[in-house]
Amino acid sequence: MKALVFNGPRDIRYESYDDPTLTVDNGVIIKVEKCSICGSDLHIYHGDAIGKVDYTTGIEPFCVGHEFIGEVVEAGPQVHNSSVGDRVFVAGGTGCGNCRACRSGTGRCPTTFAFGCSARLQGGQAELVQVPNADRTIRQIPDYLSDEQALLLTDALATAKFGIDRCDITPGAIVAIVGLGPIGLLGVELAHISGAAQVIAIDPVAERRDHAAGLGATALAPGDDLVAAVREATGGRLVDRCFEASGAAAAIGSVPRIMRNGGTASFIGLPQGGTGLDMAQLIYRNLTVRAGVAPVPQLWPSLLPLIESGRLRAEGLFTHRMPLSEGAEGYRLFDAREDGVVKILFEL
Amino acid sequence: MKALVFNGPRDIRYESYDDPTLTVDNGVIIKVEKCSICGSDLHIYHGDAIGKVDYTTGIEPFCVGHEFIGEVVEAGPQVHNSSVGDRVFVAGGTGCGNCRACRSGTGRCPTTFAFGCSARLQGGQAELVQVPNADRTIRQIPDYLSDEQALLLTDALATAKFGIDRCDITPGAIVAIVGLGPIGLLGVELAHISGAAQVIAIDPVAERRDHAAGLGATALAPGDDLVAAVREATGGRLVDRCFEASGAAAAIGSVPRIMRNGGTASFIGLPQGGTGLDMAQLIYRNLTVRAGVAPVPQLWPSLLPLIESGRLRAEGLFTHRMPLSEGAEGYRLFDAREDGVVKILFEL
Amino acid sequence: MKALVFNGPRDIRYESYDDPTLTVDNGVIIKVEKCSICGSDLHIYHGDAIGKVDYTTGIEPFCVGHEFIGEVVEAGPQVHNSSVGDRVFVAGGTGCGNCRACRSGTGRCPTTFAFGCSARLQGGQAELVQVPNADRTIRQIPDYLSDEQALLLTDALATAKFGIDRCDITPGAIVAIVGLGPIGLLGVELAHISGAAQVIAIDPVAERRDHAAGLGATALAPGDDLVAAVREATGGRLVDRCFEASGAAAAIGSVPRIMRNGGTASFIGLPQGGTGLDMAQLIYRNLTVRAGVAPVPQLWPSLLPLIESGRLRAEGLFTHRMPLSEGAEGYRLFDAREDGVVKILFEL
Amino acid sequence: MKALVFNGPRDIRYESYDDPTLTVDNGVIIKVEKCSICGSDLHIYHGDAIGKVDYTTGIEPFCVGHEFIGEVVEAGPQVHNSSVGDRVFVAGGTGCGNCRACRSGTGRCPTTFAFGCSARLQGGQAELVQVPNADRTIRQIPDYLSDEQALLLTDALATAKFGIDRCDITPGAIVAIVGLGPIGLLGVELAHISGAAQVIAIDPVAERRDHAAGLGATALAPGDDLVAAVREATGGRLVDRCFEASGAAAAIGSVPRIMRNGGTASFIGLPQGGTGLDMAQLIYRNLTVRAGVAPVPQLWPSLLPLIESGRLRAEGLFTHRMPLSEGAEGYRLFDAREDGVVKILFEL
Repeated sequence: MKALVFNGPRDIRYESYDDPTLTVDNGVIIKVEKCSICGSDLHIYHGDAIGKVDYTTGIEPFCVGHEFIGEVVEAGPQVHNSSVGDRVFVAGGTGCGNCRACRSGTGRCPTTFAFGCSARLQGGQAELVQVPNADRTIRQIPDYLSDEQALLLTDALATAKFGIDRCDITPGAIVAIVGLGPIGLLGVELAHISGAAQVIAIDPVAERRDHAAGLGATALAPGDDLVAAVREATGGRLVDRCFEASGAAAAIGSVPRIMRNGGTASFIGLPQGGTGLDMAQLIYRNLTVRAGVAPVPQLWPSLLPLIESGRLRAEGLFTHRMPLSEGAEGYRLFDAREDGVVKILFEL
Repeated sequence: MKALVFNGPRDIRYESYDDPTLTVDNGVIIKVEKCSICGSDLHIYHGDAIGKVDYTTGIEPFCVGHEFIGEVVEAGPQVHNSSVGDRVFVAGGTGCGNCRACRSGTGRCPTTFAFGCSARLQGGQAELVQVPNADRTIRQIPDYLSDEQALLLTDALATAKFGIDRCDITPGAIVAIVGLGPIGLLGVELAHISGAAQVIAIDPVAERRDHAAGLGATALAPGDDLVAAVREATGGRLVDRCFEASGAAAAIGSVPRIMRNGGTASFIGLPQGGTGLDMAQLIYRNLTVRAGVAPVPQLWPSLLPLIESGRLRAEGLFTHRMPLSEGAEGYRLFDAREDGVVKILFEL
Repeated sequence: MKALVFNGPRDIRYESYDDPTLTVDNGVIIKVEKCSICGSDLHIYHGDAIGKVDYTTGIEPFCVGHEFIGEVVEAGPQVHNSSVGDRVFVAGGTGCGNCRACRSGTGRCPTTFAFGCSARLQGGQAELVQVPNADRTIRQIPDYLSDEQALLLTDALATAKFGIDRCDITPGAIVAIVGLGPIGLLGVELAHISGAAQVIAIDPVAERRDHAAGLGATALAPGDDLVAAVREATGGRLVDRCFEASGAAAAIGSVPRIMRNGGTASFIGLPQGGTGLDMAQLIYRNLTVRAGVAPVPQLWPSLLPLIESGRLRAEGLFTHRMPLSEGAEGYRLFDAREDGVVKILFEL
Repeated sequence: MKALVFNGPRDIRYESYDDPTLTVDNGVIIKVEKCSICGSDLHIYHGDAIGKVDYTTGIEPFCVGHEFIGEVVEAGPQVHNSSVGDRVFVAGGTGCGNCRACRSGTGRCPTTFAFGCSARLQGGQAELVQVPNADRTIRQIPDYLSDEQALLLTDALATAKFGIDRCDITPGAIVAIVGLGPIGLLGVELAHISGAAQVIAIDPVAERRDHAAGLGATALAPGDDLVAAVREATGGRLVDRCFEASGAAAAIGSVPRIMRNGGTASFIGLPQGGTGLDMAQLIYRNLTVRAGVAPVPQLWPSLLPLIESGRLRAEGLFTHRMPLSEGAEGYRLFDAREDGVVKILFEL
């Protein structure tokens, strides 16, 4: 088959790779139809370590990508929720499904791993991919779901929902969204759905602020006068809740300063090591902080009715479409943030 | 002054009454500009007992009404939040402000009483009314608030918010609203704001169902096939959350039957004695039930930003307007549910 | 094999019955070592309907009992958590493990059924019993667990924990336990562990009140002056939280009257149809009510560390021990509440 | 009068100071009977900045101390909850009582200040002290309360309760307490009361670990092998909840490493600026962090019943007693951590 294959930092190539075979009874083989790049794919692209994987050493080439949808072409005997021929979307990561973490829903299965981080679990920016633990990891695409929405459900939309839910938004709250990539922009929409009276959207990129403003947010640029700007935009209240979706150190550090006493902030963006929050600020403002990685399939039951009813649109985020064969250029462009890119969709 | 005065069951007259005088240092005298009838005023109109008050005996005539807005024309020396000349809205009931119930926000102050239930606390369907405990009970009308919205904040909107909040709606939930009087219709709007993916609105009156449908709800009539209708409307799920706003025995009894396992239902409508929920149903469906009377001023801080931002409109509920002098006819018409009446506003 | 077999209302006999065979891949056969009678077994004994089962008609004889521990003597190929030879305790009911109710933990699996209610799922007051869905339904007995504690984990202790957890006890609360059968007495112990400053234990039977008093509770008898007695015992506060464990109509009806405003009450005792709570009382006291059936295995992870650490003793409840062959007399005595019986253990 | 007066860093003297006069209608003058030193008093003693107060410059001498009990000797006309002659304990800080922060209970009143931080609100390590906002700030000492317990209620016990409450301990949890000063040791006791199955108590000082072990905790010393030691002590689970009571940078940094996925940690100890938590650790472990300053009087209603019932003993913490006249030596000894000091009580 053909796939986007990691050959080293900044060296992702569209090339031939061995077809996957079904190695587990609870797994399926998916013929991929569409896939996309996630911001966290850039960690691999850059060669940044993820967990204990060091991408700068001679790591075995592997297929990248954890956001993909497609058709089931082979299913193991212990797969109950789908059959050959079904079109499905796939959780960007999977877990054993049986450990305490999986059962309690914290999403921190010790054996959880995202697709496309190493040869241990091949990625889905490929013509074919094996998905283990299918009963928990895949779901059929219902009629009301566009392919773009299905792709977003593989990670970005679930992560945004997870982050917004953990803000504990109560109707009438003022909510800040820091970082307006795809997850942050979905956060703007979800914060409104969760009852925010006002959403303050913060990003250094003007196009992204415009996008957020189009969703009804009050858009602000970060910088030295951010606290003053937030204070002015909120009638002096500052914000009750905050969702940090960028993972950038400066953005993370700004969060406690724009929050009112007693507020809650939620973080999902993976920062570089050493980035933290100043404890004195947390104490003086009586803040609650939640951080974590989304247990993707657990978010689907609350997301699907919102999409079905039309309340959640999750549209306009794929600014670029291209064939998978142009994936190397896609990665380059996405990494360079050229051409107003928000999210790239690959078609097969 | 002139006022609507209770002279006995179904005998409310527009007549002269002694002007109020300021008897407490923490109170104000309000010159009423607009006032309205609440469904609970009909308990008095009918002569139904409220607490220990028996309206069928020779009770001293008193001014009725607990929903009113107007101008402060006199203020005691211990009033800090308003001054003579301020236009204000008033919580339909007040409390001592100092007991454990008031401080804990349960709204069940042992000395709480609504305005206009007896001569102990005269009502505001009158040209003038004294409001004690003003710092907690009144609030200035900001520019962005229409007079109709201000009137609704005195009771109906706060009660609807209280009831919806206690449903613990999570975004994506299916929510039923049972009873589409003003509070129920406001509940439809608030359930959407709180993230409901679908609102099922139930009432026997077609006009009210139409009103709810206009707010985006799926409207159903109660009856023998209600459970089947709810099941069909929700794709077999039944409802996750329910807000009962009618206080009618049949409506209350229907609630557990339309709810899915593990759901939460909130009740604010005062039923006649003996009305209850079947415990076996609650147990077999693992339900949570919350019931209560709204602590009105505590709901204002979350309601006002929703109105200011335009998310909560709370409009179209006052179907009838008339001068206070026609109040007797207003009560008759409201009680008879004639002419598609939802809510009546009196102007002075 | 020999077993206690239901032959009709009040006609449970120790007699021969066909040995069970393993019919599902995810099940095990247990050789029962000890078992016990639950209060809810009396519904069957009396011939009261449970769900759609009418015990007064010519129902096929079946083995009774849902509280049992023993040794795995055969295991299907899809059982992962235990092997032949393991000593295990068993959840009194099981579920499919895959439906939304099972996954969400509400415990209301549409196909859930307790052991020993019909021939559909034979009971464990027998020498042998099949347990389906073993990975979720059984658990090995660790060294620190006595057989009596293991037996209580099959139902009573899990139900008590579920009921107490749903009271939302905060440290310092005054908690009432209504009904001092085994579940209520375990509730007394768990309420203290949950931080209750004072536990008010209510039951008409003096021995049970003495038992509760021995656990540190303030014991009261129900009756006309119960509210006054609770008021006096609590310095006028009444109770913040209440756990109703009897299912008796009078007991259920008394709950709202002994609770302070804003409190929470939890119900697990199955009442006869038509028993309810007065809605007006719930509203005037701003109460929260939770009712439900415990999802037994979900309570084990929090119960086991409490037993292991010695904080939860759960002892002294088995007042009677007898061989299974005397089970008919055991049922009679338990039903008649003779001889100070709290709970009966059968040995094999 | 005589008082302990701050004359500069490490220069607290027992000397004459002007008697306080009653300057606010809602205040009282207290004749102090006993007072004590809090760990946070050392910030002042060291001359560390608190808020905007720079103690190293020529700040006007002021009476120190915010933990004190005594007798009301004068009361303003707007004090309702106490009278001359009452023996009372006092919240270590007060607030305006009317702002949004005070009403919402976040404890972050913009005008809140602790007693004894500057001449703006004189401290109570003095013969006499004025307490403004008395209705919210003081409370009569009931018979069941020892003077030592009353002193602890002024700050340490309320802070410990606040911190433990914000850990969201559920019965059966494993809870770590980091830092075994008075607040941490009270945290050990409160964690048990809140249902902890096991308490892991961590401090470098052996005597403090012994004290914690005497309260039933598993005591560990911090250091390189702390994570391994916690893992071993908890059967591999690590801890579910953590209360950090030291404010030391190393201790704060260790918290995420000893916590299991999905846990909650609560912080009350004021660190030096720049101390933080590593965000990557928070994200990979899906942690919740709460930090804050206790709103002291709001904790009293839940603490008092626990003391009255005997569940909370809060004893053995005052290792040293001396007359107020020896206060300078008391500060020196407390700062040097000499002689196994945990807490010092001054008698007048």
